[in-house]
Amino acid sequence: MNDLILRNATLPGGETATIAIAGQRIAAIDRTGHSPVSGSAELDLRGALVLPGLVDGHIHLDKTYLGDGWHSHRPSTSIVAHVAAERQERHALAPVEQRASALIERAITNGTTILRTHADIDPVSGLSNLDGILAARERYRDAITIQVVAFPQSGIIAAPGTYDLLDEALRCGADLIGGLDPAGFDNDVDGHLEAIFGLADRHSVGVDIHLHDAGDVGLAELQQIAERAVALGMQGRVTVGHAYALGTEPWRRVAPVAEALASAGVSIMTTAPGSHAFPPVLALRAAGVNVFAANDNIRDSWSPFGEADMLERMMLVAYRSGFTTDAELDVAFDLGTNAAARALGIEGYGLAVGNPADLVVLDARHVAEAVVARPPRRYVMRHGVIVAQDGMLTTGSGEMT
Amino acid sequence: MNDLILRNATLPGGETATIAIAGQRIAAIDRTGHSPVSGSAELDLRGALVLPGLVDGHIHLDKTYLGDGWHSHRPSTSIVAHVAAERQERHALAPVEQRASALIERAITNGTTILRTHADIDPVSGLSNLDGILAARERYRDAITIQVVAFPQSGIIAAPGTYDLLDEALRCGADLIGGLDPAGFDNDVDGHLEAIFGLADRHSVGVDIHLHDAGDVGLAELQQIAERAVALGMQGRVTVGHAYALGTEPWRRVAPVAEALASAGVSIMTTAPGSHAFPPVLALRAAGVNVFAANDNIRDSWSPFGEADMLERMMLVAYRSGFTTDAELDVAFDLGTNAAARALGIEGYGLAVGNPADLVVLDARHVAEAVVARPPRRYVMRHGVIVAQDGMLTTGSGEMT
Repeated sequence: MNDLILRNATLPGGETATIAIAGQRIAAIDRTGHSPVSGSAELDLRGALVLPGLVDGHIHLDKTYLGDGWHSHRPSTSIVAHVAAERQERHALAPVEQRASALIERAITNGTTILRTHADIDPVSGLSNLDGILAARERYRDAITIQVVAFPQSGIIAAPGTYDLLDEALRCGADLIGGLDPAGFDNDVDGHLEAIFGLADRHSVGVDIHLHDAGDVGLAELQQIAERAVALGMQGRVTVGHAYALGTEPWRRVAPVAEALASAGVSIMTTAPGSHAFPPVLALRAAGVNVFAANDNIRDSWSPFGEADMLERMMLVAYRSGFTTDAELDVAFDLGTNAAARALGIEGYGLAVGNPADLVVLDARHVAEAVVARPPRRYVMRHGVIVAQDGMLTTGSGEMT
Repeated sequence: MNDLILRNATLPGGETATIAIAGQRIAAIDRTGHSPVSGSAELDLRGALVLPGLVDGHIHLDKTYLGDGWHSHRPSTSIVAHVAAERQERHALAPVEQRASALIERAITNGTTILRTHADIDPVSGLSNLDGILAARERYRDAITIQVVAFPQSGIIAAPGTYDLLDEALRCGADLIGGLDPAGFDNDVDGHLEAIFGLADRHSVGVDIHLHDAGDVGLAELQQIAERAVALGMQGRVTVGHAYALGTEPWRRVAPVAEALASAGVSIMTTAPGSHAFPPVLALRAAGVNVFAANDNIRDSWSPFGEADMLERMMLVAYRSGFTTDAELDVAFDLGTNAAARALGIEGYGLAVGNPADLVVLDARHVAEAVVARPPRRYVMRHGVIVAQDGMLTTGSGEMT
């Protein structure tokens, strides 16, 4: 006996189907309309589109102002200066758990079922950001899957004491080790990469690096990251965010780096920033690189923008990339679903029998329309339980208030 | 006696106020809370933000696929090729009035109270697009103000017969004469500009030109447009859309053109396209040019994107322009309100006593938050009547069904 039957669902490919859910998983997808499926509960979707749960593979739960008052954006002259200002400001904000919870709720109601967040680790904050994030993760554990990266936002070499804190963070619940501009921030490419890949190797965790460094320096760093991934047998477990160098340099110089990233299984994350060059999505995909999209900063000191809505992010990536055809809009959708799940190493992702029943229901005719129109999420289901309906969290969300 | 009192409104500047509406106009704005104001009806806004009605100064009501089925985007190799394909496709679409009505309803529910649309005029379509738009305008005349531009989408010199049709269109209800890439499309800058400014002068109407031409050619055309505006005494009545040349060329060459545009009172419209250079908003404003933002193509053969939501357009302009501070987000808001109203020659626009009561109510703390969050529109009022509430048209919208 199934737990729930979804009737008259439109699948991403356009077919009408009946979906059966049992024991947190997709038990059957009947496209024929002839197989008798029954369950203890039924929902008639009346032709609504069913999508796999959205994946936000790079977000900062500890930085958001959501759950706090409005804070006007203050411009900075450099990343180093901005990081220093952010460390200062942090004391005046509402607790991390409170703000992280507000952002998590926003993500869930928008259809995100899996996210990866960075937690700032530095000698001033210690592990307090990680602690707040872990508390929020526990609170929403029945509604969303959260991976946590121990992120040296203030550098490692530049901020003595950070290395030991990162080491401790990986013992205290962080799932991955992060990195930040080995050249631009720490001014020590080998030292920085040695530190984070060493920690990754020792703790058997993946690596997720913020790389704003542009030009030749950025390309050289990407090459070195790919080489270290191969050397440690970490193919498929290394991700680089931003990677502006892939967008600022001509393709003839990007191509060999793309080849190295592809064969090393290094994934590239882009937000499609509004006024900065970013990685060329189609060219990188054609070269075999796993590119994915994510929301990054949501209403925080780095950006006043953001809705924690992966469909909106897909729209922005499409808009910035000049995507217009249905096939290109399908690519934009892939960036926040399959490609992101691959980057995060999620097993059994997607609308297929046997996979966890993580899905989103909305009114659209197909994926292309979902990306451009970003309709309200009627239902968000995670592990077979409806966790949000019409923009509100529902039961199944554990200890949420 | 007032018709309606709006209590506990938050004004764009942040003050709490009581707003009195009488005879379609704003009769009083009491910031003190001490003046006794009363009316035949009252609405407690509980601190919601009240904004002036949004102004979408460049849209194509006859091109949208809204109100019709989904049509996959087909790429074109040039504007000329795209225009030809569009003329072909038009016969297979739902009637103009039906599609225009769907787009108008979307605009109204999103808070737009004034819009300017282009109507394609060419020897194949004749005046049929104009007729459809005029019918839709009549249908929604109590809910939104619509200006119509007679737009030679297929050129004038390149499409013999168009000149006489434009002349006829201006006798049949079009409010302005349009133009299109005098160099790039008609390959006759003087001939094209002579035609449209001649029609403008003869019919005493304003001019609204689509100018994609980039580089030196585009700058020279802008200079000539400014000169013709001055020669005919048309300061404040000429608008140029896109004006990519202002964004593709270095400022030292743009500056003298900006000066000419400013002193000729020529307004510049930008959509902030996703993957194309566009006019530098702050630099042009500093030079005295009236820059405004508009939605342009909404889900049509030119673009699969678009929500007919001016707050979303402001967000996109801000995102693309690198705007982050509250002051910059206020500029983005100005582009779709005051600056747009100025470009369209709207008298008595804005939240001030004596002006028509066109306003939008939504949940935000201030303008900056309204731009980044684009909250649902709780109420849209036009000429003192609530025309939309929570995304649905309400009474006061005349013959709407």
